[in-house]
Amino acid sequence: MYSFRDDYSEGAHPRILSALVETNLEQAVGYGEDRFCLQAAELIKKRLGREDVDIHFIPGGTQTNLIAISAFLRPHEAVIAPLTGHVEVHEAGAIEATGHKIITSPGSEGKLTPADVERAVETHTDEHMVKPRLAYISNATEVGSIYTEAELRALSQACREHKLLLFMDGARLGSALTSSKNDLTLGKIAALVDAFYIGGTKNGALIGEALVICTDSLKEDFRFHIKQKGAMLAKGRLLGIQFRELFRDNLFFELAQHANAMAAKIQDALFQLGCELLLFSSSNMLFPILPNRVLDQLAEKYSFTVSQPMDADHSMIRLVTSWATRESAVDELIQDLRSLL
Amino acid sequence: MYSFRDDYSEGAHPRILSALVETNLEQAVGYGEDRFCLQAAELIKKRLGREDVDIHFIPGGTQTNLIAISAFLRPHEAVIAPLTGHVEVHEAGAIEATGHKIITSPGSEGKLTPADVERAVETHTDEHMVKPRLAYISNATEVGSIYTEAELRALSQACREHKLLLFMDGARLGSALTSSKNDLTLGKIAALVDAFYIGGTKNGALIGEALVICTDSLKEDFRFHIKQKGAMLAKGRLLGIQFRELFRDNLFFELAQHANAMAAKIQDALFQLGCELLLFSSSNMLFPILPNRVLDQLAEKYSFTVSQPMDADHSMIRLVTSWATRESAVDELIQDLRSLL
Amino acid sequence: MYSFRDDYSEGAHPRILSALVETNLEQAVGYGEDRFCLQAAELIKKRLGREDVDIHFIPGGTQTNLIAISAFLRPHEAVIAPLTGHVEVHEAGAIEATGHKIITSPGSEGKLTPADVERAVETHTDEHMVKPRLAYISNATEVGSIYTEAELRALSQACREHKLLLFMDGARLGSALTSSKNDLTLGKIAALVDAFYIGGTKNGALIGEALVICTDSLKEDFRFHIKQKGAMLAKGRLLGIQFRELFRDNLFFELAQHANAMAAKIQDALFQLGCELLLFSSSNMLFPILPNRVLDQLAEKYSFTVSQPMDADHSMIRLVTSWATRESAVDELIQDLRSLL
Amino acid sequence: MYSFRDDYSEGAHPRILSALVETNLEQAVGYGEDRFCLQAAELIKKRLGREDVDIHFIPGGTQTNLIAISAFLRPHEAVIAPLTGHVEVHEAGAIEATGHKIITSPGSEGKLTPADVERAVETHTDEHMVKPRLAYISNATEVGSIYTEAELRALSQACREHKLLLFMDGARLGSALTSSKNDLTLGKIAALVDAFYIGGTKNGALIGEALVICTDSLKEDFRFHIKQKGAMLAKGRLLGIQFRELFRDNLFFELAQHANAMAAKIQDALFQLGCELLLFSSSNMLFPILPNRVLDQLAEKYSFTVSQPMDADHSMIRLVTSWATRESAVDELIQDLRSLL
Repeated sequence: MYSFRDDYSEGAHPRILSALVETNLEQAVGYGEDRFCLQAAELIKKRLGREDVDIHFIPGGTQTNLIAISAFLRPHEAVIAPLTGHVEVHEAGAIEATGHKIITSPGSEGKLTPADVERAVETHTDEHMVKPRLAYISNATEVGSIYTEAELRALSQACREHKLLLFMDGARLGSALTSSKNDLTLGKIAALVDAFYIGGTKNGALIGEALVICTDSLKEDFRFHIKQKGAMLAKGRLLGIQFRELFRDNLFFELAQHANAMAAKIQDALFQLGCELLLFSSSNMLFPILPNRVLDQLAEKYSFTVSQPMDADHSMIRLVTSWATRESAVDELIQDLRSLL
Repeated sequence: MYSFRDDYSEGAHPRILSALVETNLEQAVGYGEDRFCLQAAELIKKRLGREDVDIHFIPGGTQTNLIAISAFLRPHEAVIAPLTGHVEVHEAGAIEATGHKIITSPGSEGKLTPADVERAVETHTDEHMVKPRLAYISNATEVGSIYTEAELRALSQACREHKLLLFMDGARLGSALTSSKNDLTLGKIAALVDAFYIGGTKNGALIGEALVICTDSLKEDFRFHIKQKGAMLAKGRLLGIQFRELFRDNLFFELAQHANAMAAKIQDALFQLGCELLLFSSSNMLFPILPNRVLDQLAEKYSFTVSQPMDADHSMIRLVTSWATRESAVDELIQDLRSLL
Repeated sequence: MYSFRDDYSEGAHPRILSALVETNLEQAVGYGEDRFCLQAAELIKKRLGREDVDIHFIPGGTQTNLIAISAFLRPHEAVIAPLTGHVEVHEAGAIEATGHKIITSPGSEGKLTPADVERAVETHTDEHMVKPRLAYISNATEVGSIYTEAELRALSQACREHKLLLFMDGARLGSALTSSKNDLTLGKIAALVDAFYIGGTKNGALIGEALVICTDSLKEDFRFHIKQKGAMLAKGRLLGIQFRELFRDNLFFELAQHANAMAAKIQDALFQLGCELLLFSSSNMLFPILPNRVLDQLAEKYSFTVSQPMDADHSMIRLVTSWATRESAVDELIQDLRSLL
Repeated sequence: MYSFRDDYSEGAHPRILSALVETNLEQAVGYGEDRFCLQAAELIKKRLGREDVDIHFIPGGTQTNLIAISAFLRPHEAVIAPLTGHVEVHEAGAIEATGHKIITSPGSEGKLTPADVERAVETHTDEHMVKPRLAYISNATEVGSIYTEAELRALSQACREHKLLLFMDGARLGSALTSSKNDLTLGKIAALVDAFYIGGTKNGALIGEALVICTDSLKEDFRFHIKQKGAMLAKGRLLGIQFRELFRDNLFFELAQHANAMAAKIQDALFQLGCELLLFSSSNMLFPILPNRVLDQLAEKYSFTVSQPMDADHSMIRLVTSWATRESAVDELIQDLRSLL
């Protein structure tokens, strides 16, 4: 059984494990103030081309979202998110548990548009309603699409006009930035959003996300929030060592590139076979619609998620590739698809 | 510079790193439902001598405390804790951030007594006050003391009389259970408390605490709370692999025993030198009171925490040993203390 | 300028003020434990035909909703509400501020249906999402419709099947129960929901809602929640005296009947004039769609709310009548509508 | 049975009821934006000698505290309060329920001192702890003492030095300002604190507190917080009409003066009888220590609260007078004390 279920089925990239082994007995101070974290932050700042950002390493994505959002907002302020946004759907009410409402907007292919933002602002007019304050987006999105520079720039402008913060969930930012359709860079993103995170967990690390706070007014006392929400690891080094390794050279991007390449290979085959997909994916997640009888047979050899039934005979599934996806497994899957379709 | 500052200055015990390396490319399902977590839970249950407990692996201690307490309590219910309790002092208001008040009691040597519990219950009489519902204790405590079986039994009985839950923070449970003064076991603890956790982070793991829920009514839907608070790791395997290794044989206990032995060696030397300590420690933390001029000289070679000034010329410091503490460093410290005192 | 803006533009029904004046210098214990509150609760229980309910008087509607919902739910549990539900739209995020997500469903004419409930349950399948636990409905609804017995019975059954609590916001329950289309009674409601409230503020009282808790498991410690959320008035008598007066005889129902009759009179006239309405109203709120030029002229003599523009020339407005609406004002409005349309 | 139990045993001062009756059928807009609220706010501003404050009317004291504090603080910030502070003891965890820890300090006679503030600041040094941000005081205090101008000035200075907000709970501010020992005014208070409230409920109103926000940065969006916490009354006029009446002339102060005079009369008699008191009271609350056998006999004619047992034979009780306390009842109580002691 080979899994195309997600991008966190394996451990970490071997270079990361080696880095952990090599540094293991070096003593370091706790709680994210160690030299590994400092060096990792410096490497990321260099990559952004900016010194004036704050970088914090946080174990997981839901945690990063809830800490950042609850730190940034006052009690009556709300988040605008697309209906498919991770904070809306798959975080067990984490944002609401910190006291904040999420205003959903339909979005387009999983992406929030300036029109979504404007609608939210226009329909929230007084103190009987929450006050929209932060637009939440994911790049790559939860349905495998990515933001172009033009799209992000337009959204950023709409947010600034309405005094909204713009926050990017980058759980799969590696995949977005190495997509064939991408024209953004870490530096451009930092210029257009108020804060974002660079996902490690889904791109080769054991755990860890690097939160980048770009806007000065959001930086103050941020470590208090990390601690209060239980995300300040005693052995903060665990996060620093991993991100230092990912950004020491191009490892972070190479791993994402491999994931994308594997997904593209499957997508090409699916297109050749006339298979319909939810949308043309330029990241590491595909949502093909396949006959149930084919899915039953695939399920004997491969693990994947059924997204939703489409009709009596067809279902949409989610296929995910990762830094660790074996090309031979991809080839075998394609072979099997060819013989079944 | 050698650090006696804490028990999380190094990475993980080498056997744990090896286990991570060996299993690295095995695919596993996410979010703590992998075989490694299941096996680790089974090993711990065996050690407890009970099958009827629920075990959840959570990245850190503050997080485990806040998830468990907020899951167990209704909004008007409060925690009783000693003044030195970690939840009261060093969690940046994590418990209050989930909505619950902490009622502090003086305690005795960092331990909560039945009298503390009774005072809290007696002084909270009606709906104008919070309702005490959970007694929080740490074993070993934040000042290095441990609970005897008699003490824990008496406290457990007081709690049950007053319908209070008893929760044990076991960040340093390994040290407590391998203390020369200890007469508790994991099984006895499970019989006397409603929930407790077994700390990995401070006893050889990279991260990770194993929460054990003993009381049936507290078990329902617990995974929702882990997810909502951002503590459900996509690569939950990271926790399972580590705890499987710690409990595959006696590694967990051997690591704690080493830490205790190193602390005892330093404590013996301090006593021989006529040095005063906050209390006789039977765990891996010592709080000696030393002349400031001695501390200034020690600080050139060793890293440690100054707990508090005692008078113009003396301060209390905290010395902590761990599974990784080198005996040669301990010997050198003792040598230096002898020549300075 | 005469206001049809809402049902809280005046003070209280004169009998209520008289009752406050008459009892004014009688001493009574505080915090809702006075004889007035006890007597009022007894009168309501008699009207329900049940002794086994708990009744609490709370100053306002948003407050009643937030206290009840946060007391009834555990942290991971969520509310299901129609898109037009007061808790979703017009409470400034009050429910989320207590930590709970609201799952919205389209509903039908402002009412939640068994299908809405089932969809919410089916799409929330695991601990990555919130757990639906309470269905929130309003009767009369925010758009002026009411639940029939058959509708409420079907919804109640769907909730019980899925172990959901059913909670009815009765801010305008008086209007619903005296509607010409109504076949429910307070007793039938108490049998079908887990808790509901009887609105005083919008039916002749200065302030005050009577929360009725029908299900035993929801009753425990409820006064703690009232106090914690700041809703336990020192002079709780203020609420008791008013509800005692409303339920001493049929005053509560007579006041609502007057409001309904006034609305019906306007609605009849609008229909005769061929005016379109959002829906046929059987309560005290109407949502007619009128030409903007007519609205401009009406606005010189009458105060009302513009709900939303429908096209370039027409808008939907909200007209509300109350216990205090003068029939002469209604007649004048009708006259004016006739001359303008 | 005559009650000296509290200052909210009766309804409202007759002039307030008359004002409600007279204005009853005048239509007004809802939610605190009516002319009565505006006029009341103007009258209070005139009394303060300042136009640059924001005034909000809120139904109750616990509610005012929780709304103001949760609106003013970010999630990691904490309140400093004396051990006897209402927010610490008697609000059922209302502040913690909004997410904030209360740091208690011993205080002196129920009052917070600059030393208390400094201790709190000094012992909260980093992000592992909460960050002290707001000092909470009550005037009059919960034990009947009041702040002198010098005390408040010193405390205000200490707060400003440490960038702490100073908030005054004025549930019994009328009593404090009309005390024979008082040298503060509403204007002086407004200059020394960041926000405070003027209590109506305990000084002749049915319900209602007037929150005065003095510091600009705390004013923004405040009505959102009132709404979100359920404290924005549909019939906001109820609060405006009452405060307009209290501040139309000197009624507010006259009512408090009567309460103080009645308490002073009892205190004088107690001193003459050699009775010990917790402290010399200059407000409307007395805490005498009396023999239990005397208390048993008093309890047959008078209602009061037993504060705490002092020894086997004596207890401290709380006696409270109000605007409504009958002088003849006071005289009778004194007579009875004389014959019993």
